[in-house]
Amino acid sequence: MKRLGRKVRWNLLALSALLGARMLHGQSTETLNLMPLPAKVQRGEGALKIDGGFTLVFAGYREARLERAGQRFLRQLSRETGILLLPISKSAGAATLTVTTDHEGKPVQELGEDESYTLDVTPAGARLHATNPLGTLRGLQTFLQLIAITLDGFATPAVHIQDQPRFPWRGLLIDSGRHFIPLDVLKRNLDGMEAVKMNVFHWHISDYQGFRAESRKFPKLNEQGSDGLYYTQEEIRDFVEYARDRGIRVVPEFDMPGHSTSWFVGYPDLASGKGPYAIERKWGVLDPAMDPTDEKTYKFLNEFLAEMARLFPDPFFHIGGDEVNGKEWDANPKIQAFKKSHKIKDNAELQAYFSGRVQEILARHKKTPVGWDEIFVPGVSKTIVIQSWRGTEALVAAAKMGYRGILSNGYYLDLGSTAARHYAVDPAGGTAALLTPEQKKLILGGESCMWSEYVNGENIDSRIWPRNAAIAERFWSPEGTTDVASMYERLDAVAQRLEWVGLTHRSFQRTMLQRIAGPASPTEFAALHSLAQALEHQKEYTREDSIAVQQTSLSPLDRLVDAVFPESDISRRFSLLVGQFLASAGKDAALEAQVRAQLADWATIDDRLRPLTLRSHLAKDAAPPAAAFSQAAKVALDALDTIRKDALLTDEEKKKQLAALQTLEKQANQSQVTIPELPAFQKLVEGAGNAPKVN
Amino acid sequence: MKRLGRKVRWNLLALSALLGARMLHGQSTETLNLMPLPAKVQRGEGALKIDGGFTLVFAGYREARLERAGQRFLRQLSRETGILLLPISKSAGAATLTVTTDHEGKPVQELGEDESYTLDVTPAGARLHATNPLGTLRGLQTFLQLIAITLDGFATPAVHIQDQPRFPWRGLLIDSGRHFIPLDVLKRNLDGMEAVKMNVFHWHISDYQGFRAESRKFPKLNEQGSDGLYYTQEEIRDFVEYARDRGIRVVPEFDMPGHSTSWFVGYPDLASGKGPYAIERKWGVLDPAMDPTDEKTYKFLNEFLAEMARLFPDPFFHIGGDEVNGKEWDANPKIQAFKKSHKIKDNAELQAYFSGRVQEILARHKKTPVGWDEIFVPGVSKTIVIQSWRGTEALVAAAKMGYRGILSNGYYLDLGSTAARHYAVDPAGGTAALLTPEQKKLILGGESCMWSEYVNGENIDSRIWPRNAAIAERFWSPEGTTDVASMYERLDAVAQRLEWVGLTHRSFQRTMLQRIAGPASPTEFAALHSLAQALEHQKEYTREDSIAVQQTSLSPLDRLVDAVFPESDISRRFSLLVGQFLASAGKDAALEAQVRAQLADWATIDDRLRPLTLRSHLAKDAAPPAAAFSQAAKVALDALDTIRKDALLTDEEKKKQLAALQTLEKQANQSQVTIPELPAFQKLVEGAGNAPKVN
Repeated sequence: MKRLGRKVRWNLLALSALLGARMLHGQSTETLNLMPLPAKVQRGEGALKIDGGFTLVFAGYREARLERAGQRFLRQLSRETGILLLPISKSAGAATLTVTTDHEGKPVQELGEDESYTLDVTPAGARLHATNPLGTLRGLQTFLQLIAITLDGFATPAVHIQDQPRFPWRGLLIDSGRHFIPLDVLKRNLDGMEAVKMNVFHWHISDYQGFRAESRKFPKLNEQGSDGLYYTQEEIRDFVEYARDRGIRVVPEFDMPGHSTSWFVGYPDLASGKGPYAIERKWGVLDPAMDPTDEKTYKFLNEFLAEMARLFPDPFFHIGGDEVNGKEWDANPKIQAFKKSHKIKDNAELQAYFSGRVQEILARHKKTPVGWDEIFVPGVSKTIVIQSWRGTEALVAAAKMGYRGILSNGYYLDLGSTAARHYAVDPAGGTAALLTPEQKKLILGGESCMWSEYVNGENIDSRIWPRNAAIAERFWSPEGTTDVASMYERLDAVAQRLEWVGLTHRSFQRTMLQRIAGPASPTEFAALHSLAQALEHQKEYTREDSIAVQQTSLSPLDRLVDAVFPESDISRRFSLLVGQFLASAGKDAALEAQVRAQLADWATIDDRLRPLTLRSHLAKDAAPPAAAFSQAAKVALDALDTIRKDALLTDEEKKKQLAALQTLEKQANQSQVTIPELPAFQKLVEGAGNAPKVN
Repeated sequence: MKRLGRKVRWNLLALSALLGARMLHGQSTETLNLMPLPAKVQRGEGALKIDGGFTLVFAGYREARLERAGQRFLRQLSRETGILLLPISKSAGAATLTVTTDHEGKPVQELGEDESYTLDVTPAGARLHATNPLGTLRGLQTFLQLIAITLDGFATPAVHIQDQPRFPWRGLLIDSGRHFIPLDVLKRNLDGMEAVKMNVFHWHISDYQGFRAESRKFPKLNEQGSDGLYYTQEEIRDFVEYARDRGIRVVPEFDMPGHSTSWFVGYPDLASGKGPYAIERKWGVLDPAMDPTDEKTYKFLNEFLAEMARLFPDPFFHIGGDEVNGKEWDANPKIQAFKKSHKIKDNAELQAYFSGRVQEILARHKKTPVGWDEIFVPGVSKTIVIQSWRGTEALVAAAKMGYRGILSNGYYLDLGSTAARHYAVDPAGGTAALLTPEQKKLILGGESCMWSEYVNGENIDSRIWPRNAAIAERFWSPEGTTDVASMYERLDAVAQRLEWVGLTHRSFQRTMLQRIAGPASPTEFAALHSLAQALEHQKEYTREDSIAVQQTSLSPLDRLVDAVFPESDISRRFSLLVGQFLASAGKDAALEAQVRAQLADWATIDDRLRPLTLRSHLAKDAAPPAAAFSQAAKVALDALDTIRKDALLTDEEKKKQLAALQTLEKQANQSQVTIPELPAFQKLVEGAGNAPKVN
């Protein structure tokens, strides 16, 4: 489906390293841990030493934003290498890194503004060149990623890089509506986005459960719709500046006409139902929706959007438009009468009417509307941008009719998919190959989406990162960049760097586990830690199904399910290990020892954890998955013994064991977690069923 | 030496728990993890549930500082429990915690201001009462420490606490002169101090290597004396306010006439030598000193101290006065002539003259001088406060003559002593028992000192915490609070809480190890992690001795020595375990298995780490201690085998093994680390020499 892209030499090297199983035993120093991969990379001879004498000089066009980027770059370099770089540098002579920018960028960052750069590193020095400050920002991040530790200190390998993005719209959506996400958490996510060259922060800032932007025109929106948890206009302005400094546009989304209960707490007249309304605490697609038939609604929206249009300088403005269930409309006789008198045949058409009116308002305020698939209806203005939660084919269909689109289907971070699965999704994949070049350009890129039912400021980073870096690569790097093993190898290095950027996607876990444990012995804590590292939260929307008491927006997110990773590194590595072991026909004793040691550790988690589960209500919740996981490890261990002993499971026994594993998975689900090692365990059982003769 | 103090019931409970070896197997839920221990604690029946309905109400005297303390308290409670507490609370009814403060405190916090409080917790609610806002701040921290996890959720046990500090001056010195410590790092240390009820931040803000405070009167002080690393006056004012919010006084120290090279870079006329001067990069006691014979010096100091006296509102002002080696004075003929003409017989007397002049200046600016032992000379004003780096006896001698003092000897955190060792030092210990009650009052308390030769913002927390909490208990709690086992049990819980406060004394290690490792396999990283957890940095001033190339203030602090803890928990626990095993006459198989598993893990570190040491210059530095430590663990493992096999080492063999361990310690010292497990290893070897017969 996807064409083979350029393979640069080092990438082949990385591949061969992988074939040699180096992923399990440390990474090649030859690998450049770049993510996203640049368009073109050529390795040179030697390396540039990075030490306390490092200097950065700006040449060509200069501005305060670049100076700040330089300061940030030096701080980051210092943090990652531990080298002390003094603000007042004594060194004269040639700079280690000379950065030349040709001219200024747009006063408000524009879609499609030039982000290209070239970077040349030789043992004598490095040169970064870009026409536009955005390219400079991107190139500085590439330089940081090139810095590697060697036996002689830190160094940047000699390299020539020529780079530009594949798609102009590379976004991350964070939902601050369902759970309020503190501003410092959002800011560190902007830092993460900068590190992987994303350029759109889509701020889903209102929903049923919260209206999070201060409105001075309609203060009851935030005062009554947010539990006091909202962003002031000053904070929003500062945030937009912070994003601009990092080459990131901020596109706000005020979801309407559905997903809007929080608006109605202070302004019930906007709604189609009778009210009064309270902030929603439940999750799901709910009934409240704006009244699309009342002129008061449009008067309100006109004034409100005028205020927000000034607050958010980006020319694009997202109006949601998704998931109206129509119940309030159907129950309102006035609305039914309106439909009849206006010859509107169904609710979809009614919504299209609403959508058209809001788009007119936005146009008046010089904004280009963005909306979810639902806003794409016959006759809608060609200026709109469609964000598709439905899929690539929707974008292809739209592009054929001359509409621009961005893809989010396949990039929902809250569903807990693997990085590999996200990585396989291409905004211009599938039948997009059949589009004309002009049509192809209408596919602007994509956005990953962090919906916030089950995240808060404490664990949101871990649901976004590092998987989002793989998505960022999909949006930036050439189409043919599809080597999953290479992606995972680099992702591991990037994940580590992102913690230095300030994200807490790995470190958050220890803190949460300490809360779950309370004062604990090292043995108890180690058991909890091993468990949390091995399990994952349930995928897709199955989490809702397995909760006995439905969680609300007020439920603490304090349990094992909230502390595990969406994708377990340990599990992925174990799966590779089992694959290698079985590929050796069960003959590789060293691999067997590794598999056995891991399984033996897991098999004892339940026993080691038990004292904790008798003291802490949070640890108690971890008891069913702990028991299930240890038991599953024992099943796998038995299978391993069978292989070792040159025995063979009967089909009957095999079936029984596989069924046991399925039951154990269900037991883990009681606490909304899943056992990602199950496929590997199953393979061992299968292997014991077809046991090759050993010895 | 120290009298037995009150023992409250729960403390005895904790002790009995320890005797039952519960420290190794999880902590008693009966233990209150309070540190410092309150003056009086009585347990009641039942507990107060802490959940999403928690409310805090202020009664009596109210002020903005208390409101902010309340907000901080709720944020902290929320962070520690994971419970979502909404800023806009719906609940009416009785508050969960009612806080009553009688009256306002002093506009500038004073030495000896009332910090007492009472706290009553019942299943129905809690009441905190204090006369002064300072007592309220202290009581809020006690309440936070009381919150524990149970099988039914979070709860605070019913309790009656009546509490006040033993000493009015409970300080922490941080040296921002030698290494600049970023403001956010200092602030989180203030948060830590608040959590353990310390009330003086001693800001050592200038030294040979840096002048870190902005002077507008003499701008070259910070411009030329700091490499650009200094605190602006605005930042300092903000910092002082931040401290006041937490009930902490800020006492600045401008060290003079020695420790002052950084002043001379911009103002060489102040110095006794010829100049020009450059910022010092070396450590140690260096030659440069102010010219005490030139009136220009006093004119300068008068204007400078006037400026600083306004900037730092605290009535106390520290002028250092330590460690003048006199070389510049001896080499300056003008100074020699002055001594002769003024009948000053030696440099000590010359320094006393200087000190007296500076004290006069300070008095003019309404400040009370504080200085190190050296300022205590015959005839010096009775108003001064002596900070003793020499010892308690110096304070006792001073008190007998009517002088006030604070103790720092025994509390130097940079020397890497154990918490137990610091804990054993009492500002009013030793012959202070013989002082009259009036004289005793002159011993105001103490200060722990964090000198910064080998710390920066990244690892300083780990050198201060959690050991500083034990020192804080020494300063706050009743004299008889000396149970070391109880201290360690509670310290462990406090150490965890302090990370929630924002300190990074534990989490910093993983980041530093990741830098040392670079991209690494889990096996490699686990080896490095085990190594770093087990070792400690060298003690006292031996680190200097074992460095081949002397470190300077510009050397990166990026090696294993910078990433290990000053006191290894793992080592302390292992030592207890070995003690228990040997106390069982080697007969307890479960204990033996634990000892063996730990040793077996350690014995393989060297092998597992090796690939890393061939890729990273920082990991390479860890190779000698890794080899030494694994080898030492093997020696201990052999001894364990000997005990198990019912064999007996000959005296010759024993001597050889003990000598081998000493050699291995020296090998570890090559990288400035030490093997704290050696005494336990030695005990095993000794045990193998006297092996009891085992089956």
